[in-house]
Amino acid sequence: MARVFNFSAGPAALPEDVLKQAQAEMLDWQGSGMSVMEMSHRGKEFMSIAAEAEADVRELMAIPDNYKVLFLQGGASSQFAMIPMNLIGKTGKADYFRTGSWSKKAIAEAKRFGDVAVTADREIDGKFTTVPAADGFEVSADAAYLHYTPNETIEGVEFPYVPETGDVPLVADMSSTILSRPVDVSKFGLIYAGAQKNIGPAGLTIVIVRDDLVGDPLPGTPAMFTYRTHADAESMYNTPPTYGWYLAGLVFKWLKAQGGLAGMAAINQRKAESLYRAIDESAFYNNPVDPACRSWMNVPFTLANAELDAEFLKLAGEAGLKTLKGHRSVGGMRASIYNAMPEAGVATLIDFMREFERTKA
Amino acid sequence: MARVFNFSAGPAALPEDVLKQAQAEMLDWQGSGMSVMEMSHRGKEFMSIAAEAEADVRELMAIPDNYKVLFLQGGASSQFAMIPMNLIGKTGKADYFRTGSWSKKAIAEAKRFGDVAVTADREIDGKFTTVPAADGFEVSADAAYLHYTPNETIEGVEFPYVPETGDVPLVADMSSTILSRPVDVSKFGLIYAGAQKNIGPAGLTIVIVRDDLVGDPLPGTPAMFTYRTHADAESMYNTPPTYGWYLAGLVFKWLKAQGGLAGMAAINQRKAESLYRAIDESAFYNNPVDPACRSWMNVPFTLANAELDAEFLKLAGEAGLKTLKGHRSVGGMRASIYNAMPEAGVATLIDFMREFERTKA
Repeated sequence: MARVFNFSAGPAALPEDVLKQAQAEMLDWQGSGMSVMEMSHRGKEFMSIAAEAEADVRELMAIPDNYKVLFLQGGASSQFAMIPMNLIGKTGKADYFRTGSWSKKAIAEAKRFGDVAVTADREIDGKFTTVPAADGFEVSADAAYLHYTPNETIEGVEFPYVPETGDVPLVADMSSTILSRPVDVSKFGLIYAGAQKNIGPAGLTIVIVRDDLVGDPLPGTPAMFTYRTHADAESMYNTPPTYGWYLAGLVFKWLKAQGGLAGMAAINQRKAESLYRAIDESAFYNNPVDPACRSWMNVPFTLANAELDAEFLKLAGEAGLKTLKGHRSVGGMRASIYNAMPEAGVATLIDFMREFERTKA
Repeated sequence: MARVFNFSAGPAALPEDVLKQAQAEMLDWQGSGMSVMEMSHRGKEFMSIAAEAEADVRELMAIPDNYKVLFLQGGASSQFAMIPMNLIGKTGKADYFRTGSWSKKAIAEAKRFGDVAVTADREIDGKFTTVPAADGFEVSADAAYLHYTPNETIEGVEFPYVPETGDVPLVADMSSTILSRPVDVSKFGLIYAGAQKNIGPAGLTIVIVRDDLVGDPLPGTPAMFTYRTHADAESMYNTPPTYGWYLAGLVFKWLKAQGGLAGMAAINQRKAESLYRAIDESAFYNNPVDPACRSWMNVPFTLANAELDAEFLKLAGEAGLKTLKGHRSVGGMRASIYNAMPEAGVATLIDFMREFERTKA
């Protein structure tokens, strides 16, 4: 078996140690005689797995006691509706930053449930390559919340700061950046993340919500789209995605073994800086993003000659470097280097890029 | 490793052959160098897995071409809202059968989106032990659809027939009975099922919907709760639960190897009949359900002396017979014997029950 370096933006690579443990336990979790995916979610075995995963993510992120951690389904796309359906009712209005493809999707869905003010729009000539300055945006006094996307997965644009919003609750789509470094959860009203980038397999969504923001859904909000439903039932209102929850727990243990989020941040910073340096030192590769807000997680880059894209992808694939094709809306390449991408993977990619440039450019 | 016989109502036992294949492929699916859960859902590897799973379930169930098969998230509990949100708009009214705990939940959620007529209510003295006769219910002429629960998982009550509803589309929650025997899909407008009983792991929901019923959601329906969203995107509007989809595909292959649904039905009928026979032949065990509508999938039974329940469960567990405790709303025991429960598991349970009765009753 030859494992590849998989640069997929999501679903994405998982730590090999996690996969090996899941493999070993597939038919028999710790002497139970059952696979985790066969267990009743209300049985003592799965309840212990679930509780331990929650405790570990609370420890990793230092989540204060006045926040619920929900293990849900439906991905960020469901949160795009759940957030306004549960939070916008207080004033009927919300502020949104528009910094790339995913915040655009969040805005489009939110507009169906209330008044949305786009208080920072960073689209310039059809492209997103910057974020607003930390003092470069307004917060509407009557906004029920301000929503932003700390890391835009498609464009590779990342906020180097947490926006200051005063009394207006801050809501963040952390799908592609959660657990990649320490973050002060108390600055946020609600954090959400689809699991399939930095947490585990697709089909699990984590929501971290401050207690005072759990209530008050709009009329006609389905029970399954009501945070209160899930908060009151400790994410067991209906059958949760148990296997994803278990795998997330294994990832949390793995993160603790890496030195927690501070340890992970140091590794991630090294990976990103080495790749950007290789791009910047080359006249052949280019990353269009303002260096002040380049993503640690998603590194898009173009070749000087787009006619070489197909050959680049073919040869990279043969070298065990997979899923490097850029999103169709941006073109070129994209290397997603989440927590589970080892430093050796980034080093191998850089070596390949240099060799490709030397022989083909 | 000692695998147990796991009678959980869901998440439930999976075929051991399926788990072994998933285990073997965990770190490297067919030479790709990736786990299935690491693959981009838009990559050629996963697209082939997804397409093959859909083709196999279409073949197994003989699903006509004018039906979409959707691979969604959120479980039956999400469908309880999605069905009225997408289907009730035509007339604002729908008929529901009330035959147990799950149809009650479906009714409660549907009432939030339109007028619900309960056209068959089988609650008698607080219990559900029968279904309406095939000619014992009315269909409202102006109903947008009629919803029923072919198998009530908690009560162990099952329809021995498919209701005739004329031009009113028939909607069925098949969570606990799908794939357990052949069914004429063309009699239904929409079939839905959470995966965690007869299909695969929790977190995957399959919806089989006739083309003419895909459209027309109510205002304020989230994009993720709109069938059209998922039908147009072939279940790839957002990241689907890829690993669950893959495992469902393995289960479909396994079902084909069992002789398809006709082969499975013969096995399931033998399992159920032998267990009910053992219960009926005993004065110590009792099943309260009308023999004409006893479930093949979920067999609740009580002990003549409820004070022996705890000892029954303890000794059963020691004998490798797990998750037999009945639902808290019904009490006693429940043996869920879905497709993946081998005949040997039922035989072992029957032997245990006889021995328990002989020594303890």
